[in-house]
Amino acid sequence: MSRLDNDIFLRALLREPTPHTPVWLMRQAGRYLPEYCETRKRAGSFLALCKSPALACEVTLQPLARFDLDAAILFSDILTVPDAMGLGLYFAEGEGPKFERPLREEWEIRNLAAPDPHLELRYVTDAVAEIRRALNGSVPLIGFAGSPWTLACYMVEGGSSADYRRVKTLAYTRPDLMHHILDVTTQAVVAYLNAQIEAGAQAVMVFDSWGGALSEAAWREFSLAYLARIAAGLTREREGRRVPSIVFTKGGGLWLESLADSGFDAVGLDWTMDIGRARALVGNRVAIQGNLDPAVLFATPEVVAAEAGRVLDAFGPHPGHVFNLGHGISQYTPPENVAALVKAVHRHREKDV
Amino acid sequence: MSRLDNDIFLRALLREPTPHTPVWLMRQAGRYLPEYCETRKRAGSFLALCKSPALACEVTLQPLARFDLDAAILFSDILTVPDAMGLGLYFAEGEGPKFERPLREEWEIRNLAAPDPHLELRYVTDAVAEIRRALNGSVPLIGFAGSPWTLACYMVEGGSSADYRRVKTLAYTRPDLMHHILDVTTQAVVAYLNAQIEAGAQAVMVFDSWGGALSEAAWREFSLAYLARIAAGLTREREGRRVPSIVFTKGGGLWLESLADSGFDAVGLDWTMDIGRARALVGNRVAIQGNLDPAVLFATPEVVAAEAGRVLDAFGPHPGHVFNLGHGISQYTPPENVAALVKAVHRHREKDV
Repeated sequence: MSRLDNDIFLRALLREPTPHTPVWLMRQAGRYLPEYCETRKRAGSFLALCKSPALACEVTLQPLARFDLDAAILFSDILTVPDAMGLGLYFAEGEGPKFERPLREEWEIRNLAAPDPHLELRYVTDAVAEIRRALNGSVPLIGFAGSPWTLACYMVEGGSSADYRRVKTLAYTRPDLMHHILDVTTQAVVAYLNAQIEAGAQAVMVFDSWGGALSEAAWREFSLAYLARIAAGLTREREGRRVPSIVFTKGGGLWLESLADSGFDAVGLDWTMDIGRARALVGNRVAIQGNLDPAVLFATPEVVAAEAGRVLDAFGPHPGHVFNLGHGISQYTPPENVAALVKAVHRHREKDV
Repeated sequence: MSRLDNDIFLRALLREPTPHTPVWLMRQAGRYLPEYCETRKRAGSFLALCKSPALACEVTLQPLARFDLDAAILFSDILTVPDAMGLGLYFAEGEGPKFERPLREEWEIRNLAAPDPHLELRYVTDAVAEIRRALNGSVPLIGFAGSPWTLACYMVEGGSSADYRRVKTLAYTRPDLMHHILDVTTQAVVAYLNAQIEAGAQAVMVFDSWGGALSEAAWREFSLAYLARIAAGLTREREGRRVPSIVFTKGGGLWLESLADSGFDAVGLDWTMDIGRARALVGNRVAIQGNLDPAVLFATPEVVAAEAGRVLDAFGPHPGHVFNLGHGISQYTPPENVAALVKAVHRHREKDV
């Protein structure tokens, strides 16, 4: 087994007791950090930053230098996969991600093929390997991918969407084509995550960011079924250690029990559901990761500590909690509030021991 | 009692048996109808349309001329209330609603006062009276208002917001000021809805459109408490008839039981929760209004009918269902799909009788 100085994040995901609750933050390497903005400027663009293993490694480590976080997460983007499928990812200034060649015609959908992650996504696995070397056994590294449904939303819409008009129209009128996209994308995601694990990722997370835009029946058909296939296809052990997996459907609180039964070790929870109620529903079946409203970080350090305590108290003294926000950290977050948050989470559990 | 040819909407809200499931659509008078676009053009602007009782009446009736809907809803906007409080509502082209004088300073919040709906919102009560005359007892007229939390979001942010940064910061750092805004706004909403009832509204609905952006604890404190105060303050009978009330927290499926106990006759449900599960949770305590994904209306008439049938089957044969979308109808909806929807809903239940 490779050396790992702090494994409490991995242990909490496996619902083993830990001396305190581990904490990391979605999008912890990001625009709220001036040093990130500096590196990004140097890279020239967000995409150039993602595609440079050296720079991706640099920004991945930045939040760990400032805060006592219990995990690192690969700096990348979920849309690297459709980009590797040939859709042509680009970022229009101030407009979010877009694709040059969104899926609009049946033949485009029929021609879709899963990329070889060792070729088309080599820059990601190289980044994973470089970050692992740089972390040098301090904390575990999380790899990630988007859920097939979420990727399909971008692939069909050609960018983000307020109403998912094109992709939902496709799902309701041509479910056969929709399932074809999801099938190919699922193969791609499994291979991609396993390549990240092979390169050194010690846990993986699947972001079902747009699952919550669906009706319950449509979510089961177009998202959950593919999430379960991913869980079943993941490499489960590497370097003599279990590689835990996390699934996060934003807005998926209503479907928590189904998520808990989908084959992942842990379920991410946004901030709309009380985490105590979530724990009561899923019991010890899975770990839960979450669930502070990122907007709390706009308040004062005192409020941040109090609200973090509320989440920790609601979860209760059981093992199996990874503290996180309910969504990615906002670019407007004062870094000193993140410091207050991490300190509050670590101190809270110490009181119990 | 005033004459009412079709009262099945009101009866369903009171959980009385009806020959078929009543149906109306949120934003049924809107941009998907060419005749609406024509009237709006004539009015000059959305706000001019809202402020003209004659034109508001005209567009309110347009969907009823096309489709066999079981209720009319006042054409207006939830932001008329803060506008009457002096915040200066305007619509920047393609940007949604904005306020000239958002609440930014403590003194502005302290100076806030509930408007007299008979004075500052007279154009609304005049529209209600005019629509009632024009409906001439055919179907009931629904009045509405925004929830205090939802109105406060706009009042503090100055417009719509992706992250509710200002209003959540205020809620977390100065709950005293937040509660003051909510308190005054609650008084305003109660007086406004009762003025609409007095002018002829036969049911009322409260739109808690942004309630779902809060954590459960924050929603209870900053939204639910004020919704319950509204329910308690509403005029319950008029013209010898019960005036049913509906509350709709978008994204509030997780809190359905609390909503069902908040004092309203019916609870609106967006499309993310299976309506059969919702019915099982609340039983016969309240009626449920919903819950087709508006995106289904982008599909074919056959798919629309099938998906409507799925919602109706899920709710089951109990009384107390008002069919609706889970959110306002999209401007991109083909009107023929609305015709197919209304027909499918009405025919479905007839099969049972």
